[in-house]
Amino acid sequence: MIYVMDLVGVAVFAVTGAIAAGRKQMDGFGVVVLAVVTGIGGGTLRDVLLGVRPIFWVADQTYILVAVAAGLLTMLTARLWISFEKGLAVADAFGLSLFAVIGTQHAMDAGAPGVVAVLMGVITGVAGGVIRDMLANEMPFVLRGELYATAAAAGSVLLLVFPKTGVGEVLGPALALVLCLAIRLAAIRWRIQLPIFRLMRRP
Amino acid sequence: MIYVMDLVGVAVFAVTGAIAAGRKQMDGFGVVVLAVVTGIGGGTLRDVLLGVRPIFWVADQTYILVAVAAGLLTMLTARLWISFEKGLAVADAFGLSLFAVIGTQHAMDAGAPGVVAVLMGVITGVAGGVIRDMLANEMPFVLRGELYATAAAAGSVLLLVFPKTGVGEVLGPALALVLCLAIRLAAIRWRIQLPIFRLMRRP
Amino acid sequence: MIYVMDLVGVAVFAVTGAIAAGRKQMDGFGVVVLAVVTGIGGGTLRDVLLGVRPIFWVADQTYILVAVAAGLLTMLTARLWISFEKGLAVADAFGLSLFAVIGTQHAMDAGAPGVVAVLMGVITGVAGGVIRDMLANEMPFVLRGELYATAAAAGSVLLLVFPKTGVGEVLGPALALVLCLAIRLAAIRWRIQLPIFRLMRRP
Repeated sequence: MIYVMDLVGVAVFAVTGAIAAGRKQMDGFGVVVLAVVTGIGGGTLRDVLLGVRPIFWVADQTYILVAVAAGLLTMLTARLWISFEKGLAVADAFGLSLFAVIGTQHAMDAGAPGVVAVLMGVITGVAGGVIRDMLANEMPFVLRGELYATAAAAGSVLLLVFPKTGVGEVLGPALALVLCLAIRLAAIRWRIQLPIFRLMRRP
Repeated sequence: MIYVMDLVGVAVFAVTGAIAAGRKQMDGFGVVVLAVVTGIGGGTLRDVLLGVRPIFWVADQTYILVAVAAGLLTMLTARLWISFEKGLAVADAFGLSLFAVIGTQHAMDAGAPGVVAVLMGVITGVAGGVIRDMLANEMPFVLRGELYATAAAAGSVLLLVFPKTGVGEVLGPALALVLCLAIRLAAIRWRIQLPIFRLMRRP
Repeated sequence: MIYVMDLVGVAVFAVTGAIAAGRKQMDGFGVVVLAVVTGIGGGTLRDVLLGVRPIFWVADQTYILVAVAAGLLTMLTARLWISFEKGLAVADAFGLSLFAVIGTQHAMDAGAPGVVAVLMGVITGVAGGVIRDMLANEMPFVLRGELYATAAAAGSVLLLVFPKTGVGEVLGPALALVLCLAIRLAAIRWRIQLPIFRLMRRP
C-alpha cells in the first residue's frame, strides 16, 4: 500500500520534471533525466545523507522504470492536457505530502534526532524539484514561490510529535499527510506566500 | 591496462572542463575545479549512489593529480590548439565510451539490477559534464545537444546483454565501447539529434 | 573548544547564505535553506566523499539549529548592519580558515592520502558557498573572485607537512589557521586575484 503510493509520488514528480524539460526545449534524453531526477532526487539525497544502503532505487529498479515511463508518456501526451495544468499542481501537492511523511519516517527509523528528521522530511519532499530547477538553469521554485516546503515541514513536525503507540502508528502518518496537503492546497488556492527578504543587489 | 585507459578518460574530460572554465573567464582555481569535477564527477556520483567505499580517487590520489595537471596544461597551452577543437570532441567521445563501459561493469559487480546498471553507465559517462555546465551557470549540454547520453546507454545495454562466459568477458566490453564510440562519432559528424520536446514557457 | 569554533564557523557561513538569499529576494524558507546549505554544505560533501557515517549534523542537531537561527536573525536584523558588510568578509575568512583546517584533519584521520586531504580541506571550506551560489543561480563566487580557495589550500598543505609529534599537534593546526586567514585577509585588503583564463565564447 505504502509502496504503491510511493510509486505514484515518483510518477507525479516525474511528470513535473518532464514538463520543465519541455518548457526549456530539451531533447528526449533531457526529458528522461529531468523526470528521473525529480522523481527520485529527494529520496536519494535523504538516503545518501542518512547513510542508508542500498539507496531505495538501486535495490528495486521499478522506481527508475516508473519515472522513465512517466517522463516519456508526458512527452507524448502533454499537448493534450497541458492547458489543465492546475490539476498537476494538485497532484504535485499529494506527492509532496507523501514524500514528506515517508522521509520523516525513514529518518526516525534510522534514529535521527527530531530536527534532523523534520529536515529529512522536507528534503525528501522538495529536493527533487530543486535539482530539476537547477538542471533547467532556473532559480529553484521552492526558494521564491508559494508556501510549499513549509507545508512539508508542518506535516513532518506533526508526525514527529504524534504519539506512536496503538492507533497512533497509523493515525499519525495519515494526519501528517492531510495537514501537509491541506496547507499546500490552500496555498495554491489563495496564493499564500511567505514573507520575502529583500536586500539591494550588490552594486 | 584498464587503469591507464581510465586515467586517459579522466584527463580528456578534465581538458573539456578547463576549456569551459576559460570560456567563462574563470581564474586559475576555477580552471582546476572544473577540470577535477569534470574528470572525476561521473565516477564519484556512481560510487556514492552504489555505496562503494572508498570512492576510487580517495584511495588513489593519481586521479586527482592527473585531472589537475590536465587542467593546468590546458590553461597554459589552449591558445595553441583551440582552433582544432573538433579533435577534442573526438577525444571526449572516447572518454564517454570508456566511462560508460566501466560504470556499467562496476554496477554489475556491485549486484545492481539491469536498469540500474545501465543508469550507472550513463551517469558515469555524463554526470561530470553536467556538473561542469552547472558550475559554469549554463544549462547542461547533454540535456539539449546532440546524441550523447544515448550513445552511452546503447553501449551499456550491449554490455549488459552480452554473454559473460569465455571470450565474452573481453569481447563484451570491447564491443560495447566500439558501439558507443561509433554512435557518438556519427552524431558529431552528421549532427544527429534526439527529438526536442517543446512546450510554451510559462507566461 | 574546537566544537564551539566549528559552530561559530557554521553560523558565519549561514549569515552569508541568508544575505545571498536576500539579494535574490527569496522568501523566508529560501533564507533558511541557503543559511543551512552554506553553513553545513562543505562538511557534508566532505563526509559523504570520505564515507564518514553518520554525517556530523545527523548525529548532533545543534548544527542545524545554529544555522537556522543565524539565517532567521540575519533576515530580521540585516538592514541594521548591511552597510558594514566588510566585517562579514572578515568573519567569512575566519570560517574559511577554520573549516579548511578541520576538513584536512578529518581526512587525515580517515587515512586519506595527502593530495586528497588537501582537497578535502578546500572542499570543506568552499563547497557550502559554491552550493549557495548555484541555488541563487549565479556562477560561484569562488571560481572567479579574489584569492579564496587558494588560501584554504595553503593552510591545508601547511597542516599536512607540519610535524605531528609533541607540540606540533597543537601548533600545526594553529599555524595553518593563521596562514589561511592571513592570505585571505590580504586578498580582501589588496584585492589580490589569481590569473584569469580567457577563451572566446563559443560563437
